[in-house]
Amino acid sequence: MSEKKQKLTEISELGEFGLIDHITKDIKIKHSSTLKGVGDDAAVIDHGKTCSVVTTDLLVEGIHFNLIYMPLKHLGYKAVVVNLSDVYAMNATPKQITVSIAISGKFAVEHVEQIYEGIKLACDTYNVDLIGGDTSSSFTGLAISVTAIGEAKKEEIAYRNTAKPNDIVCVTGNLGSAYMGLQLLEREKEIFSSNPSAQPSLEGYDYILQRQLKPEARKDIIEFFATNKIKPTSMIDISDGLSSEVLHICNKSNVGCKIFQDKIPIDGETSQMAEEFKIEPLIAALNGGEDYELLFTIDMNDLDKVKDHELIHPIGHIADKKHGAVLITTAGQSIPLQAQGWNQMKSK
Amino acid sequence: MSEKKQKLTEISELGEFGLIDHITKDIKIKHSSTLKGVGDDAAVIDHGKTCSVVTTDLLVEGIHFNLIYMPLKHLGYKAVVVNLSDVYAMNATPKQITVSIAISGKFAVEHVEQIYEGIKLACDTYNVDLIGGDTSSSFTGLAISVTAIGEAKKEEIAYRNTAKPNDIVCVTGNLGSAYMGLQLLEREKEIFSSNPSAQPSLEGYDYILQRQLKPEARKDIIEFFATNKIKPTSMIDISDGLSSEVLHICNKSNVGCKIFQDKIPIDGETSQMAEEFKIEPLIAALNGGEDYELLFTIDMNDLDKVKDHELIHPIGHIADKKHGAVLITTAGQSIPLQAQGWNQMKSK
Repeated sequence: MSEKKQKLTEISELGEFGLIDHITKDIKIKHSSTLKGVGDDAAVIDHGKTCSVVTTDLLVEGIHFNLIYMPLKHLGYKAVVVNLSDVYAMNATPKQITVSIAISGKFAVEHVEQIYEGIKLACDTYNVDLIGGDTSSSFTGLAISVTAIGEAKKEEIAYRNTAKPNDIVCVTGNLGSAYMGLQLLEREKEIFSSNPSAQPSLEGYDYILQRQLKPEARKDIIEFFATNKIKPTSMIDISDGLSSEVLHICNKSNVGCKIFQDKIPIDGETSQMAEEFKIEPLIAALNGGEDYELLFTIDMNDLDKVKDHELIHPIGHIADKKHGAVLITTAGQSIPLQAQGWNQMKSK
Repeated sequence: MSEKKQKLTEISELGEFGLIDHITKDIKIKHSSTLKGVGDDAAVIDHGKTCSVVTTDLLVEGIHFNLIYMPLKHLGYKAVVVNLSDVYAMNATPKQITVSIAISGKFAVEHVEQIYEGIKLACDTYNVDLIGGDTSSSFTGLAISVTAIGEAKKEEIAYRNTAKPNDIVCVTGNLGSAYMGLQLLEREKEIFSSNPSAQPSLEGYDYILQRQLKPEARKDIIEFFATNKIKPTSMIDISDGLSSEVLHICNKSNVGCKIFQDKIPIDGETSQMAEEFKIEPLIAALNGGEDYELLFTIDMNDLDKVKDHELIHPIGHIADKKHGAVLITTAGQSIPLQAQGWNQMKSK
């Protein structure tokens, strides 16, 4: 790369979200069919009777996954699921995916087969067609790029920027478990590195390991919304931790919120592992990431429709912007939420 | 990666196309809206009034591009154009793209800006909206994944598998130039490596360098088809060399063909550089790759509509399958076409 002698700006100065904002701030949309471009879980294209939602993710070895503990079949499955989660977060139904893979020379046909076994299993589980992509060489690590395309009627689509004061904030499932699964895998990897004859002690932690290695996307919740005629006033999937996602909704919707610590759902196995690691379980839930649960807001009038669903947990409400986005602790303190999230680029 | 002690199959035994065939052979399509899955330039999704065509490419450093001579802005431009070319090859109009980039620590914000300058220039040139994607870290090289989405009416879409005997085979522009541009860049890189004070001698070769570093896609031809109500009976873009693409059309359409050597369009600068390298220009045209021209067939009755277009060259005709897919040389010999193409995986 030839280069003028100018001062260069390190990417860590902006962080991942800052860099994306910087790069995409001056994008102008040319086609009226582009209903939503950059800035939500997925883009939205209008086809008249229906809309497509489109989302894409590029996963690279060593950053997004570690082949030391990630079986290839699980990797293929997860690469698909994380994209489907973005489609569900638009209140849309995923229909098609494309997959591109770049593989280094250490891979054999059987390895690629394992990755595709996982991809096809995810396609079957979520009723999605694999419609294209390619496989090429890489000099370095493995990279997988998945694009998912979903379908929805225009009026059904849930965005990030449409939450309004007094809406109820809900999350699905539980939070922090995938992060604790990752901590466990990292610990056992370290032990194995220093003593290759050591056996990994992963027993009794099936749930948090599965949440990290083979996460699922919230097809069930979107189907529940459809059956019960619930339209979230805003929605996002939880990939970077609850704090980060709550702040996305608040910033895009120009509102504040109150989230109550004692309402945040945390699984027992997650708490137990957090204690072993001397991590506050709340921190894993707020900043852990990779939960692939849904965070959404509903009108107060719809609360009755969701409150008996075992997977849906009201955790707070939307407020005026002037109140900020805060966590109310069990002790009654009010703490501003901060997006620590999974900001890979700031951590380097 | 844990592994059973089984004999592993090297990917070179199958090659890129063989691997993709192997992996995708048992894919079952679940949705009636998926009109075309794997196996053409792009997949086709039916939305009722219109169809989407969807194509994706993952480009990785060291395999698909070399940053020693590829300026970052050009790289961004080319990454978009190669995908748009696939959309045009379906006789569709590209409307939206998503872009995902993984960058290693050696990159600064200004480098990412340069890549996006090229991406945005391509979007403006081809009237396409950038609607999504992300930027993440990479421990190794640079990777760029682009997905392009185009629009067409169902009856307008041109596939690979619909050529019929006696159709005229045409190509646009000229062939082999991007390959000779690459040879020139590789030569100068070698000279520079052994003597860093040497100045690259690239002057006078603007055309072939531009074809390699900043290729264009055939928007003009698709617009000409629309204006003149021409529907190709089959079409494909030329990314892996003429031979490989002719064989794709013949194999998928279950036909043979005769291609005439003296009809294959080769630019003067391409021939000149080929002579310098003691390469037969025909070989660059047949096997060179990265031309991003269109190869299409038309019904004989449409020949009059295209024969005066300066960029459209009839090069032969489709024949019965039993005659095979052959090149008729200037000397009148008949030689079976072979797909050498850009089979990266076999060359490793």
